Amino acid sequence: MGEFELIRNFFAAAPCAQGGEGVALGIGDDCALLAVPLGEQLAISTDTLVAGVHFADPCDPFLLGQRSLAVAVSDLAAMGATPVAFTLALTLPTVTADWLDAYARGLNVMAQSCGVALVGGDTTRGPLSLTMTVFGRVPAGQALTRSGAQPGDWLCVGGELGNAAGALPLVLGQRTADEAIADPLLRHYWSPQPQLALGQALRGKASAALDISDGLLADCGHIALASKVGIQVERSKLPVSQALVTFLGQTGAEDAALSGGDDYVLAFTLPPVELPKLLADGWPIHVVGRVVSGQGVVLLDADGHDITPQTRGYQHFRETP
Amino acid sequence: MGEFELIRNFFAAAPCAQGGEGVALGIGDDCALLAVPLGEQLAISTDTLVAGVHFADPCDPFLLGQRSLAVAVSDLAAMGATPVAFTLALTLPTVTADWLDAYARGLNVMAQSCGVALVGGDTTRGPLSLTMTVFGRVPAGQALTRSGAQPGDWLCVGGELGNAAGALPLVLGQRTADEAIADPLLRHYWSPQPQLALGQALRGKASAALDISDGLLADCGHIALASKVGIQVERSKLPVSQALVTFLGQTGAEDAALSGGDDYVLAFTLPPVELPKLLADGWPIHVVGRVVSGQGVVLLDADGHDITPQTRGYQHFRETP
Repeated sequence: MGEFELIRNFFAAAPCAQGGEGVALGIGDDCALLAVPLGEQLAISTDTLVAGVHFADPCDPFLLGQRSLAVAVSDLAAMGATPVAFTLALTLPTVTADWLDAYARGLNVMAQSCGVALVGGDTTRGPLSLTMTVFGRVPAGQALTRSGAQPGDWLCVGGELGNAAGALPLVLGQRTADEAIADPLLRHYWSPQPQLALGQALRGKASAALDISDGLLADCGHIALASKVGIQVERSKLPVSQALVTFLGQTGAEDAALSGGDDYVLAFTLPPVELPKLLADGWPIHVVGRVVSGQGVVLLDADGHDITPQTRGYQHFRETP
Repeated sequence: MGEFELIRNFFAAAPCAQGGEGVALGIGDDCALLAVPLGEQLAISTDTLVAGVHFADPCDPFLLGQRSLAVAVSDLAAMGATPVAFTLALTLPTVTADWLDAYARGLNVMAQSCGVALVGGDTTRGPLSLTMTVFGRVPAGQALTRSGAQPGDWLCVGGELGNAAGALPLVLGQRTADEAIADPLLRHYWSPQPQLALGQALRGKASAALDISDGLLADCGHIALASKVGIQVERSKLPVSQALVTFLGQTGAEDAALSGGDDYVLAFTLPPVELPKLLADGWPIHVVGRVVSGQGVVLLDADGHDITPQTRGYQHFRETP
C-alpha cells in the first residue's frame, strides 16, 4: 500500500470521520452523500491555505489543523448556517507520521468543537497546501448574505478585533512578548472560534453579515459594495483587547482592528429595532458604526471627522484572503 | 484592486458561474447556497491536481481546464448522480491573463457539457495546483456505491480502456505518433467525458460502480474490498481502441487497459438479469469479468488460467490517484 493510501486510511479512521447528523455516506466511496432536511439549503465554502503564504512553514501541525478548519467553518457562521461536514484536500511534500498525527488531532479538536464530520477529500504529493470545503445547512431564504444592509442600520461586530493581526509578529518570530500578552493573541490566531451560535441567532435579524478575514475596513467594503450603501466606521468604538493595547499601544491596536486580517469575528448590519433584544440576550455585540446612503467605507474619529486612510489601499492590500 | 481579486471577479463573470438549476446563491458571498430537491441527497467529491505530479507543467491551460473538471465530475457519474455545481480552489504562482482566459474557456466548455455551475472557490498565490469539489444530486438511497457487488454478477466497463494511459508518452513528449493515432488518444486524456448518462441509467441496476482512475485491476480491487468479494478479470475481453493497439501493440494495449490510469470510464458489477435490457437500450457496456466469492482480483487468460501479475504492485502503484 502506498504511503498516500495509508494517509487516506488514517484520515478515514479519525474520530471526526465517523459520520454525523446529515451524513448519509462518509469517506471511502467515489462521493460522500449528504441529506439536507426539508426546507433547508446547503451552504458551501472553500478556502485554501498555502505554506509560506497563509501560514509559516514549518509550523505546529496541531495548531494548523485547528486553524485550517476554523477559518473555513467561519464562513458558515457568517451565513448563519449550522455546520454539517467538510472535505480536506491535503497536499504534502513528504509523509511524516508525527506531522500527520498532530495535524489530525488539531483537526479533530476543531471538528468536534464545530460539529462537523470529515466526509472526503484527496491527499496528494506536492508543495504543502490545504483546501477545505465546508458544508452547513440553513433554512431556505434565511441565510445571512452581504447584500441586505440598509441606511440607518447599525454596523456591529461580534467581539474584539485585531488580536490575530497582533499575533502575527509573534507567529513569525519577529517579536516576543510576555506570556500574559502573547497567549491570548496567539490563541486567537491559531484557534479562532467560528461564531456559529451568533450567526444562527442573527438569522432573520441582521440585514447583512460576513466574517472578518481581511480587516474590518476592507470587509465593510464588501458589504457596502454588495448592499449598495455607504458605511461609517467609528474609530473610537473599536473593541480591542487589553493584551493587544499593551502589545501595540492604543493606536497600533486600533490599526490592527481596522486593517489586520484573520479575525474571523462576525461583522454585520442590524436594524436598530433588533439591537436591544440581542444585547439583552447577552450576545457579544459591539456597535462600531452605521450604514448610510452612498457608497464606500468612511472612517470617523470621535468628533465625527473623516479620517479615512488616504491610500484606501486597505481595501485590497491582501491579495490572498 | 489586487490581481487575485481581479481573478475572482474574472471567474464570477464566467459563463459557467451564472447559476443553474439548484443554485440558490452563487459566487460572491461567504458561502454558496444549493437547494436539494425533496427525496434527493447531495453527492460530493473533491480532487486535487498538482502541477508536475498530475499534469505536465507547463501544459495547455485550455485542455487543463477541461480535464480538471472532467476528472472531478467523473466521480458524480460513478455514483449515478446528476451534476449541479462545483467550486474551484486555484493556486497560481503568477497571474497571466492569457493563461487564465484559456483555462476558464476550457473549464466553461466542460462545465456546459456536464451541466454544472461554478458556485465558489478560492484563488491563492503558490505553486500551481487545482482542487475541484463537485456536487450532484441523487435520489436518496439510489446512489451507486462500491459495496454491493455479489458473486455471480458480471463485471462490466462503459467503454474502451487504456487510451489515456496510451496518450501519456505523447503528453510527456517521450514519443510521437501519426495524427490518426495521436488524436483519439490525446482527446481521451485531455477531455475525458464523464459517463453521466450511463451512471444514471445504472441506478437501481448495478450492484457496485466506480470510475476507473487507477487502472481496471486496481479499481476492481476497490470494489472487491468494499463488497467483500473476489473479482475475475478476463484479459481477452478488454475493449481497447484500434488507435491504442496500433500505437502499443495488442499486449501493450491490454496492459494499458489493465494498469494504466486516467480512463474515467465506469466499471460496475451487474446482476445477469439486468444486462440484456441495458444492452438492448444501446448502452456501451462491455462484460470483462465476473464477481466470485472470495477476495481480491484475479486476471485470467482466454483459457481461464490465472495470469495475475505476480508483483500485485499494480494495486497501489499510483500514490496520488
